[in-house]
Amino acid sequence: MRTHTCGDLNSGHVDQKVRLCGWVKNIRVLSETLVFVHLRDAYGSMQLLAEQSRMPQFAEHRRVLELLNPDTLVDVCGTVVRRPENMTNDGEKTGQIELLVDQIQVLNHAEPLPFSPYIKGKLPNEEVRLAHRYLDLRRPELQHNIRLRSKTTSAIRQFMDDNGFVDIETPMLFKSTPEGAREFLVPTRVDPGTCYALPQSPQQFKQMLMAAGFDRYYQIARCFRDEDLRADRQPEFTQIDLEMSFVTKEDIQSVIERLIQRVWKTIKQVDIQVPFPRMSFAEATSKYGSDKPDTRFGLEITQLSDLIPDEHTVVEALVIPDGAELLTTRDLVPFNDLVGNNQKNKESKLTTIHKVNSQGVTGLSKSTLISRWLAGSSDVLDQQQRQAKLSSLLNSISAKSGDLLFVSERSIYVTPANTTLGRVRSLAAKALQEKNALTIPSDKYNFLWVEDFPLFTRESDDAHGKLSATHHPFTAPVEGDLPLLNTDPAKVHGQHYDIVLNGVELGGGSIRVHDPAVQSYIFKNILEHSPSVQDSFSHLVTALGHGCPPHGGIALGLDRLVAILTDSTSLRDVIAFPKSANGRDLFMHAPSVATKEQLAEYGICVATPKNGSRKPSTILATDPAHHEK
Amino acid sequence: MRTHTCGDLNSGHVDQKVRLCGWVKNIRVLSETLVFVHLRDAYGSMQLLAEQSRMPQFAEHRRVLELLNPDTLVDVCGTVVRRPENMTNDGEKTGQIELLVDQIQVLNHAEPLPFSPYIKGKLPNEEVRLAHRYLDLRRPELQHNIRLRSKTTSAIRQFMDDNGFVDIETPMLFKSTPEGAREFLVPTRVDPGTCYALPQSPQQFKQMLMAAGFDRYYQIARCFRDEDLRADRQPEFTQIDLEMSFVTKEDIQSVIERLIQRVWKTIKQVDIQVPFPRMSFAEATSKYGSDKPDTRFGLEITQLSDLIPDEHTVVEALVIPDGAELLTTRDLVPFNDLVGNNQKNKESKLTTIHKVNSQGVTGLSKSTLISRWLAGSSDVLDQQQRQAKLSSLLNSISAKSGDLLFVSERSIYVTPANTTLGRVRSLAAKALQEKNALTIPSDKYNFLWVEDFPLFTRESDDAHGKLSATHHPFTAPVEGDLPLLNTDPAKVHGQHYDIVLNGVELGGGSIRVHDPAVQSYIFKNILEHSPSVQDSFSHLVTALGHGCPPHGGIALGLDRLVAILTDSTSLRDVIAFPKSANGRDLFMHAPSVATKEQLAEYGICVATPKNGSRKPSTILATDPAHHEK
Repeated sequence: MRTHTCGDLNSGHVDQKVRLCGWVKNIRVLSETLVFVHLRDAYGSMQLLAEQSRMPQFAEHRRVLELLNPDTLVDVCGTVVRRPENMTNDGEKTGQIELLVDQIQVLNHAEPLPFSPYIKGKLPNEEVRLAHRYLDLRRPELQHNIRLRSKTTSAIRQFMDDNGFVDIETPMLFKSTPEGAREFLVPTRVDPGTCYALPQSPQQFKQMLMAAGFDRYYQIARCFRDEDLRADRQPEFTQIDLEMSFVTKEDIQSVIERLIQRVWKTIKQVDIQVPFPRMSFAEATSKYGSDKPDTRFGLEITQLSDLIPDEHTVVEALVIPDGAELLTTRDLVPFNDLVGNNQKNKESKLTTIHKVNSQGVTGLSKSTLISRWLAGSSDVLDQQQRQAKLSSLLNSISAKSGDLLFVSERSIYVTPANTTLGRVRSLAAKALQEKNALTIPSDKYNFLWVEDFPLFTRESDDAHGKLSATHHPFTAPVEGDLPLLNTDPAKVHGQHYDIVLNGVELGGGSIRVHDPAVQSYIFKNILEHSPSVQDSFSHLVTALGHGCPPHGGIALGLDRLVAILTDSTSLRDVIAFPKSANGRDLFMHAPSVATKEQLAEYGICVATPKNGSRKPSTILATDPAHHEK
Repeated sequence: MRTHTCGDLNSGHVDQKVRLCGWVKNIRVLSETLVFVHLRDAYGSMQLLAEQSRMPQFAEHRRVLELLNPDTLVDVCGTVVRRPENMTNDGEKTGQIELLVDQIQVLNHAEPLPFSPYIKGKLPNEEVRLAHRYLDLRRPELQHNIRLRSKTTSAIRQFMDDNGFVDIETPMLFKSTPEGAREFLVPTRVDPGTCYALPQSPQQFKQMLMAAGFDRYYQIARCFRDEDLRADRQPEFTQIDLEMSFVTKEDIQSVIERLIQRVWKTIKQVDIQVPFPRMSFAEATSKYGSDKPDTRFGLEITQLSDLIPDEHTVVEALVIPDGAELLTTRDLVPFNDLVGNNQKNKESKLTTIHKVNSQGVTGLSKSTLISRWLAGSSDVLDQQQRQAKLSSLLNSISAKSGDLLFVSERSIYVTPANTTLGRVRSLAAKALQEKNALTIPSDKYNFLWVEDFPLFTRESDDAHGKLSATHHPFTAPVEGDLPLLNTDPAKVHGQHYDIVLNGVELGGGSIRVHDPAVQSYIFKNILEHSPSVQDSFSHLVTALGHGCPPHGGIALGLDRLVAILTDSTSLRDVIAFPKSANGRDLFMHAPSVATKEQLAEYGICVATPKNGSRKPSTILATDPAHHEK
């Protein structure tokens, strides 16, 4: 219908006849013979001038225009003219021109809108906006985000094509797995009482594609997780999923580095240096207290375990320079809360906060291990000896008067994604930024590979605790650690790698087990799967034994990637139709109560709740941010 | 790991050191000092030569090689050399060269395979192959199909990018709709007892994207339908889905014509002529007895309704030239079956088969309307008059001695996708091809737009039968028919268009209703939705009234498109992990029985079947091949 969009037009079009379709922004009746209409579409805006002298039945037109609500759709024909010099607007793309209207026609009347999406300061709360998502999506920010997301996937696909990857769709109607505690079930009427499950990732299928001889697979895949929703989690999410045969860890990392380079260059016109630095999980947790450290700032943690030999405990310290001076009692409230709450975590034993002053350190006796060390093990030390010992300790961790000091003790048997001091570090960075005592540049992109994770994680704070797969049971052990599988599996490292950007985990992957005997051993002897669970994975073990090549892969979270590229604080701002924080589609009104008749077709019925058994499932303490499951 | 694939190598690599990874095809021990290994990967094959003189510990290597099963994975280093002249093989890409092995190492041993995917004639039945899909996918045909599918989607995406379409993901966790009789439900534990539904298409979301101001949307979208599976239906399927604002039917058709041109050019190096011919639904059903006619051959149907005025009945004839002579009694069995079975359809009244001979026509008296017409309405005709009347009838339909003649009567109140004579026409084309009396070129691509469908279809053979939407309730009426909405809605044509290729429906779309009043009127007054159903669509009507532009779109079935491009007879041959004919994943073993505990988490339980109420839902008589729902 239209010849141009508002975004197309500029002074070069002066004297041309054009036809535009767009939304009425506002209408100003200047006089009986002159009406200004501001028009907008997805690409820009344009000033229209309706004049009596040019339009037959102008008075009638004027009466119609006067009554139009904003966001009414009109179809307008006219001639592009230059604006009078005193009326130009350099801030607008079409600020030098306007359209002299020949004809204007209403395409669709708009009722008064529940809110205007164009006035940033006047937006209603998110619930109201989600209930009218089609209006909210007219916001310039969301238009930009969703369009940029499309450009991003296009750049990714182009890169994958260029590198010989085959785009293969894997099923959404997958098998319910015995361990899939957080999966959605899909009953089917083809065989009432049976269910498919929605996949948490295409993991098993992509490994089978490697067995099938597709040696470079990729997919931008929808995945699902039915869990209590926390900030920035959606029940459905999208990941860039890939898998390769005959490769090493370095091959996959190199592909991802070049992919990231391409995306940043295309979308942000920024050159990213490759290769990205590598850091071991051990270093990341001991130095930064996190398996996804933000390395744009220091505030590093110091290990004191060598100082205080307790073979079951890690002792570590974090110094916040000038923290005791900069932070008020009020500022310290969240720190006290955090330290208090973290005592409940299974790995955390005790974390204490101290101020360093010229006299020494406040309340150091609260830290049981350090006060015991200061007191000396065999002899009773005098005050001077204790002071000297303390000074040497403070020296070793570079703590000076005015600093804030955190000392933490935790179990060696459980290594969490974030230690207490890791959380303190993030909180401190935020607090120091607010005091202008620390600057974290937002245009700095510190990509980082975190590697050498333990292949298995203890489920309890106990040297003999049951082992579970740190990431997933298909991850291959580091070659050199293979003998430890039999003797000390908790010491085995996995060929897993996470890609981290500025403290955010973008994704993770691994080289997989391809030897059926190793895979069976892990299922049976280490993870201690029951025979029925072993059975449910037997087709995979069989496939490994039918000529499956060595292979590995990775998955990156697309939603998070686009959120970073658009500087969005919420994933909901980069998804066209997100669910609300509690998993609801507030526009379509999903989920909804299914009728008895609907359920009966699937051979199921609504259960009668017993003793409040309808409570939500428990939240897992560890952060399962890894996409490949 | 590898430096090349088998597909990379040719005579240009002679004297180069290379490293290959691949599957052992076969091993021939030629002598104590010489072993031939044939290696294959996804890109080609290569002959390896292991010689005692070049390899330390050759004897040991030979013993290992001797015992390897086919499809064992090996990693081999060596030098490319030219084959002796008497051993070259011009049929193979690497037939001029071979690899002199320095080192060979087993990457993964293969157990004996349940079947070899490489010997075409020896494949087991499809069930066995689906149960080992990773092996079946090694078949060169499936490798080709899946890789070509990726090339196809890549070409499509490139085209959409070039034309300014924005790729937008819409939710898979959708709302259960009151009319969605064939949708999958997804219970969620976030609110036990409530369900999402998997979308049958992104229809509502893409219309909301238009309301949001994204004027060119596309998506390659997964869709779901839980129904009794017939040939070539999968519970999940993929469609190329697009929607545009401010457009006419012709704009969308033009985009699709250029898209098809691009795909055929990229994938098959064939130039497709555009624009495609347009045909009205009325012409398609009256001439070809189908709303998706194969126009590569004639065998057109002739309408006799003018001849025999019965205002409730359509009378039509199909002549199969020389059919009475070419087809034996045995050949006619399927025709008799078809004609017999079709009497059960609600629109079909009577179809009779006749042989034309020099004396006249056999058994024409069985056709009640024609025999009545021959007998004359007012006067009694003599034999000669009858003969003359018959001759003129046969003349008018070009029937001659030796032809086979089908005469059919059907109700005017129901217009099916395929009439009885339409089915006879397809069957006849097949039969004549087998007799070499008809040639249908497989490399001819007769694209066709079928248009001007009735907007509503009667649900019963009755002038006052309830109306339902022929395609979906969002299709806009043809502008000129708008007044008929009030007076005679059954006569309203819709702005719907189907794209048909050689008798196969590739997809369909329409211009949508954008006026909230028209949409409400259709829901309430024509489709007679109950208040609760109206309520479930009210958010859409509201959105139309908040400045939704005029818009329209289309969806093409990707699986079917790729099946045509690869000449596959089954959709399962173009899907990496298809479900079996009865909806099962025979490799993963889905769907599976959910445990009571799993179901209890969702607040549901397995219903006790009452009086065998677990029967599958009834199959709808009409063919719902349209993708947009």
